This record gives sequence, structure tokens and C-alpha cells, in this order.
Amino acid sequence: MTGGVEERDQSVSLDLLKQKMANFAKERDWDQFHSPRNLLLALVGEVGELSEIFQWKGEVPKGLPDWKEEEKVHLGEELSDVLLYLVRLSDICGIDLGKAALRKVELNAVKYPASKKNFNTSNGTAHTG
Amino acid sequence: MTGGVEERDQSVSLDLLKQKMANFAKERDWDQFHSPRNLLLALVGEVGELSEIFQWKGEVPKGLPDWKEEEKVHLGEELSDVLLYLVRLSDICGIDLGKAALRKVELNAVKYPASKKNFNTSNGTAHTG
Amino acid sequence: MTGGVEERDQSVSLDLLKQKMANFAKERDWDQFHSPRNLLLALVGEVGELSEIFQWKGEVPKGLPDWKEEEKVHLGEELSDVLLYLVRLSDICGIDLGKAALRKVELNAVKYPASKKNFNTSNGTAHTG
Amino acid sequence: MTGGVEERDQSVSLDLLKQKMANFAKERDWDQFHSPRNLLLALVGEVGELSEIFQWKGEVPKGLPDWKEEEKVHLGEELSDVLLYLVRLSDICGIDLGKAALRKVELNAVKYPASKKNFNTSNGTAHTG
Repeated sequence: MTGGVEERDQSVSLDLLKQKMANFAKERDWDQFHSPRNLLLALVGEVGELSEIFQWKGEVPKGLPDWKEEEKVHLGEELSDVLLYLVRLSDICGIDLGKAALRKVELNAVKYPASKKNFNTSNGTAHTG
Repeated sequence: MTGGVEERDQSVSLDLLKQKMANFAKERDWDQFHSPRNLLLALVGEVGELSEIFQWKGEVPKGLPDWKEEEKVHLGEELSDVLLYLVRLSDICGIDLGKAALRKVELNAVKYPASKKNFNTSNGTAHTG
Repeated sequence: MTGGVEERDQSVSLDLLKQKMANFAKERDWDQFHSPRNLLLALVGEVGELSEIFQWKGEVPKGLPDWKEEEKVHLGEELSDVLLYLVRLSDICGIDLGKAALRKVELNAVKYPASKKNFNTSNGTAHTG
Repeated sequence: MTGGVEERDQSVSLDLLKQKMANFAKERDWDQFHSPRNLLLALVGEVGELSEIFQWKGEVPKGLPDWKEEEKVHLGEELSDVLLYLVRLSDICGIDLGKAALRKVELNAVKYPASKKNFNTSNGTAHTG
């Protein structure tokens, strides 16, 4: 368990969050509710809350220069809720999320070579899709 | 930079993924497309693809015992796409996602004390909401 | 304007809802907030609220036989919120939603002929996708 | 059945779409797949596809003046997919969507009186929420 080290140097790992979520559910007897599709719908619910933060703002510049501190804290909470359910969903499905994410970055690098910079934004192509 | 160590012991950190996504965008000149709301909509798109995997399956047991290996690989890719956009969105917004997630787990522990196990599922209350 | 007739015989048209939403926004000076992407994010927010209703329930039978009346009323409200933003988004984008929907049903009938009943649920294919 | 009249004068009703979706499913023996949560996840999948259309575009002006005709046709299809699953989900849940939507507009009118035009966009409040 390297959690202590990770928390100390502020490099939070997906395994640490997975472990915290598993303990959290176990201590509350919530494993019974954490089926894949329940967690997926909970994730969708949190993505909705995240979207609500941005919904009436029009375009928002990087770094959110005009946002109040409390708005940024709220945003951090909603981003975290999405992450925590995503980590939990992966765990319940038996997927190693960190390993899968590193692999996906490599697949994306093959799909979108760095030398080919022209990106067609008109067709809605997803970078990572 | 502890990326090498983390990759070696398979404990993938959010900072590592953040750095990889930042490099990926920079090498392709994609920073221009990575505004907060663009990334948020891309995230929603990936959540849609994740949902499509589960949409006609009815209830799915933990561990996905009946899924083919290729289905699990596909699921890992969609979970990763959601994660990668979430990490990128947080970075572009100036939010330290790992720190925020640890804080949110602690807030949840206060909101839902472990001693109070009765969880009302009838009202749609979100665990982490 | 056939709204009176439609409301009387309870066959609510998309045009009626479009008109009501347009009037609603105009009376409140909200047209300034109703840009396509603002409305899209608001729609995503409402889909999140809809998902929250179903998130901890496990599989739910058709007709919701065990739901309390107040839960059904709440569900009707969230379904309506999604619909109203969808109607408004279509209007603001200059899309005739009713006409588009009738056309899509016809396209689906060609894509999925009624004679070919075998539907592969294992690959996540969307019926209407 | 007023479907014929409605199609003739292009005022498409929710009941007409409901009937078409019910027939469509019945003819293909798809009722077995149309459980509430299956349909909800299919809806989320379609919202994802709708979001993908807008994801790399930055802010988009009303009426989509710079979009090609084929992009608008594609948009109409994705808006329709969301609508058709929403109509089907409501039907399977036993909710009269048209009636619920009219009621929700009235509730919104009470919640947001037309005389009180100041709308606080900073707190993410949903108009129809």
C-alpha cells in the first residue's frame, strides 16, 4: 500500500481512489447497490450536475479567470463525483482503469500521429473516440 | 517526475495522465480546440458511448462473467475515454482533480457516516452528490 | 393555431410545445441565454436528473408497478424537462423536430426491416442509431 | 386516431410518435428489449451522439448559419433519436408525456414569473429544473 506516499507528494493514483471507494462502500454495506448499471446511471447523473455548472455561461475561457473561488470548489466537487463513480464502475466491472487508460493513450497516438496536425473539426470526430 | 516509477508498478496517477494528455494535445496543436465546454461535450459524447455498451443488456452482474474478452477490452476503452477527457477538462479548468477527489471522499464520509447504514434507495439520492 | 383543439383532445403536438417555449423565453427575456450549446448542456443536465431517478433501483419492470404516485409525477417532470429543452434546442437550431422525427422513423424502418426480427443485443447496436 | 390529419398539416403529435414507436417495436419483436433502464441508457447514448455534433465547434450561433445542409440533416436525425427514445421510455413507464409537458410548462410559469426577468446565470440554475 503506497497510499501514504502518494498522498504526501500529492500524486493521487487511481488505485488509491479505487481502494478508498471500495472501503467506503464496504463500511456502509453499499456493495449491494453497486451493480454496473446502477453505477453507470449514477455517473450519468453526476455528468448532468457537471453540465449544469456550465449550461448558461456561454463560452468559458481556459483557467476560468472570472469564476469565484466557491464556483471553482463546486466544479472540483462535480468533477470528483464523476471520477469516483467512474473508478468504482471500473472496479465493479473488473477493469483496471489505469492500465486501460495508458493503453488508450497509446492507441490514440497511433490513430492520430503527431506529424499530421490538421484536425477536421467540422465532422465532430472525437480525438479519443 | 515519478511517471517512470508509477508505470513500472502499475499504480497510474492522475498527474501522469494529465501530463500525457497535455503533451498529446501540444504535439498535435490541439490546445486551440480544448476549451472547457468543448471538452465537456466531448466527455458527454464518451459517456454516451459507454452507455451504448450496456444499453440492451438488462441487468449485468458484477465482474461481467458472461462478457467476451473483446467486449471487456472495448469497455476498458470507453471508460478510458471518459477518464481522459475528465482529466483534460480538469487541467484546462485549473482544477487539481486528484486533490479534489480525495477531499470529496472525505466530505462524503461526513455526509454519510459509516455507522448509519440505512440507505434510502427510493428517493434517488446520490451517494456522492 | 390549433393549440386549443390539441389541448382539448389531449394530443399534444411538438409545434404547440415549441410555441409555448418560445413565448416563455420571450416573456422572461431569456432568448439571450438560449444559444444552441447552452440549451444542449441544459438538456444534458436534465438527462442527469432523469437518470438519478433510476440509478439505485436495479432493473425496473414496465409500467413501474411498485412506484408511488409521487415518484411517477416526479418522473413525468424530468421526462418533460428533457423534452422541453429538446424542443427548444431544435427550434433555436432551425430544425423542424416533428418532421425530422417522422423521417427518422421511416429511415429506421428501412434500416431494420420488420421481417428480419433477429436483433443482436450483444454488440450494443442502437435501434435508431 | 387523428394521425392522418396531423401528418397532413405537419403538426406532429407526441401520441402519433408513441404509436409509431409501439408499432415499430411490436413488428420487430423488440418489446422484450424495451425495459425502462434499457431505453434510458439508449437515450443517454443518443444524447452523446447529439453532443458529438457540437463538441469541437466552440460557440454556435442561433440558426446555425454556417452549417452545411448535410450537417443540419445529421443534427435533425440525432435530435430525433433522442426524442423517439424519450417518447418510448415515457410510454413504457406509463407516463403521458404530452400531458406531463404541458403541466411542467405551467409549473415553470409559476416558478419563474414573467414579471421577474432577472435571471441569475452564475449559479447554474436550470430554467425548467
